[in-house]
Amino acid sequence: MRKIIVQKFGGTSVADTDKIKNVAKIVIREKQNGNDVVVVVSAMGHTTDYLVKMAKDFSENPSARELDMLLSTGEGVSIALLAMAIQAAGYDAVSFNAMQAGIMTENIHSKARIIDIKTEKIKQNLKEGKIVVVAGFQGVTDDGEITTLGRGGSDTSAVAIAAALNAERCDIYTDVEGVYTTDPRIVPKASRLNEVSYEEMLELAHAGANVLHPRSVETAKLFHVPMRVRSSFKLDNLGTLILGVEKMEINKPVTGVAADLSQVRIVVCDVPDKPGVAAKLFSRLAKENISVDMIIQSYARKISNTNDIAFTVDSADLLKTREALDALKRELGVDGNIQIDENIAKVSIVGAGMIDRPGVASAMFETLAQQNINIRMISTSEIKISCLVDKENARHAVQALHKVFGLESSEIAEVKGDLPNLD
Amino acid sequence: MRKIIVQKFGGTSVADTDKIKNVAKIVIREKQNGNDVVVVVSAMGHTTDYLVKMAKDFSENPSARELDMLLSTGEGVSIALLAMAIQAAGYDAVSFNAMQAGIMTENIHSKARIIDIKTEKIKQNLKEGKIVVVAGFQGVTDDGEITTLGRGGSDTSAVAIAAALNAERCDIYTDVEGVYTTDPRIVPKASRLNEVSYEEMLELAHAGANVLHPRSVETAKLFHVPMRVRSSFKLDNLGTLILGVEKMEINKPVTGVAADLSQVRIVVCDVPDKPGVAAKLFSRLAKENISVDMIIQSYARKISNTNDIAFTVDSADLLKTREALDALKRELGVDGNIQIDENIAKVSIVGAGMIDRPGVASAMFETLAQQNINIRMISTSEIKISCLVDKENARHAVQALHKVFGLESSEIAEVKGDLPNLD
Repeated sequence: MRKIIVQKFGGTSVADTDKIKNVAKIVIREKQNGNDVVVVVSAMGHTTDYLVKMAKDFSENPSARELDMLLSTGEGVSIALLAMAIQAAGYDAVSFNAMQAGIMTENIHSKARIIDIKTEKIKQNLKEGKIVVVAGFQGVTDDGEITTLGRGGSDTSAVAIAAALNAERCDIYTDVEGVYTTDPRIVPKASRLNEVSYEEMLELAHAGANVLHPRSVETAKLFHVPMRVRSSFKLDNLGTLILGVEKMEINKPVTGVAADLSQVRIVVCDVPDKPGVAAKLFSRLAKENISVDMIIQSYARKISNTNDIAFTVDSADLLKTREALDALKRELGVDGNIQIDENIAKVSIVGAGMIDRPGVASAMFETLAQQNINIRMISTSEIKISCLVDKENARHAVQALHKVFGLESSEIAEVKGDLPNLD
Repeated sequence: MRKIIVQKFGGTSVADTDKIKNVAKIVIREKQNGNDVVVVVSAMGHTTDYLVKMAKDFSENPSARELDMLLSTGEGVSIALLAMAIQAAGYDAVSFNAMQAGIMTENIHSKARIIDIKTEKIKQNLKEGKIVVVAGFQGVTDDGEITTLGRGGSDTSAVAIAAALNAERCDIYTDVEGVYTTDPRIVPKASRLNEVSYEEMLELAHAGANVLHPRSVETAKLFHVPMRVRSSFKLDNLGTLILGVEKMEINKPVTGVAADLSQVRIVVCDVPDKPGVAAKLFSRLAKENISVDMIIQSYARKISNTNDIAFTVDSADLLKTREALDALKRELGVDGNIQIDENIAKVSIVGAGMIDRPGVASAMFETLAQQNINIRMISTSEIKISCLVDKENARHAVQALHKVFGLESSEIAEVKGDLPNLD
């Protein structure tokens, strides 16, 4: 049986008709390798921003259903154009929107999760020798309502389709050349990783590496779909393969260093030192769909019988968090102060190799101390250590840690794409 | 039971977000009148041209299926934005693409015909008090393939939906103020018709009046759907009502004058004077889907035993016609010349009142003769007389006929929109 390769191209890779022609070449090359090819594409370039801007002309908060209807047209354009480009190059192709491709989601707008993929139509068309082009980021409910998948949606579409088709691999083509040991804009000698495990990739993604959204990696891990992140523009470079840990060569304790500047630190002061208060606080935030990252609870003060609870949330959730906390304070009759600190950065080291190598954490803390960088909070997982530092120290911290853990490449990485600026 | 009004807005009426807000107001006004409202919209302004231009970057002749996929996104944008605009004004609305609205067509791309409309979803949403916004111009096949309806498509969607819902009326909102006795750019004193019959509107549309495509009028006539053509921008004007002839006040023999400059005259010379030759010729053209308008066959020449056949086709079909004729000449072993004359115009007078009033035709011919305009061909129907004249005489002919048949208004019509230029 022929192998199936799923390829995914983001908005930058299909930003104009010349770039779509370039994508068609990449797709055809894979077909010429003797594989069946399913291509998942995002909307062209800034289409989504443009559509959202028009929607905001009517309302700051347009109906999520109608916004999904609107945004889904973006991929409708790119799939049809890519199918035409492939046909113009002499290969048979057919485009499917989410409804036609059978990408079934739950009935939630703007952030639906994929429930099932009805692959009959895709399979039939592959069997007929066609290259199948599928709209990413969108889905459809049992009732025929159009949904969108939210952040990381197109990557997740591609991985889910690869899982449903039992594909050989899911290649994520993007504007960077792979996964790096850290952001090459902070450390020009950052090295590209040839391979990285799902777990490490997940931690790196959560720690602020913007190459892949954790959601797609989670799906890949769950269904054992090997993923490859590679550049749409530099094809001689194989990028980074993401797969199960058993294949990894773990010769370094740390695989990558990342910084996340989008977190905000919140301290709720003078919380009564009674059982269940922290639970109430965090279950309230969970109910509001606010993800809490790091948490520290101070020792209770003997005199006032209160303590302080500090935690971090994404800055996008700050307003919602404030509202939830204010409501909770009224409810609990608590009068404590709420302190908000936006001047923070989370610096993380990630590596499957740190599990059985003691001293990695202390090496991290020492390195930061040597650089006179104060650590405000710490959180750890099996394969990750994160330290909260002042924002102005983030760049310095990443550079020092990248060097200490021996991640430097002999070459200067070429920086492409729109990576977040740490300055 | 509440009455249902179907409203249709063309691309000019939804060209930008301000215009969409204006449309929302018109829709809501109808809802406030106590009616259930279904709104059919085209793609915004020049969206379709823009999409086609991108497609042509890949191929002069892109796959019709993929072109339909591409073009259908245009209405996807306008329906969602209009639903948002209506919601922002405080009314409940929901947008449906063709698949959701159940607009079932035959499986032919770029010019599909509507077979059926599954109205359950629209009816259910009307029942819930919602204003339903439906994508015009597009349909879906039983297999879930997206089709487009071709020229006059959005008007036809609206009329078909009105028929399926047994609606009170189908209002076609456009950038002109109604149906005029002739093009106000040729005759500034052209009068707006308050009412016109389906039959007259059909003849006017075929004769070159560009307000409505004959296809939508045919559908309206077939299902007895009253149509109203009116301006999106001048709401104090009720436009023109198009309905069954029994309601018409026929006090003038002629209702309107129109000119069609898109015809080409073709003369096939020296055709053998044998039975069946003309039949072969025109059945061949019909097979190629070429509509022939006027036909004249000359008397046979006794010596050569041949005759000439002259007819007109739409200039868009000229190339196809030439190819069909060349093939036929080879097939029949005929060596006759083919003459093509693009310098022609068809000038028509239309009126249900001419049926029982003799002398209308002769009045037309005399008027043209007085203006020194030579008539090249003539064709007639029960309620229409068309004369082929040289292109440079078209304007003059229309002006003279409009005056002779007493169609002038006391007011100068305000000219809006993109009417075809006769110069």
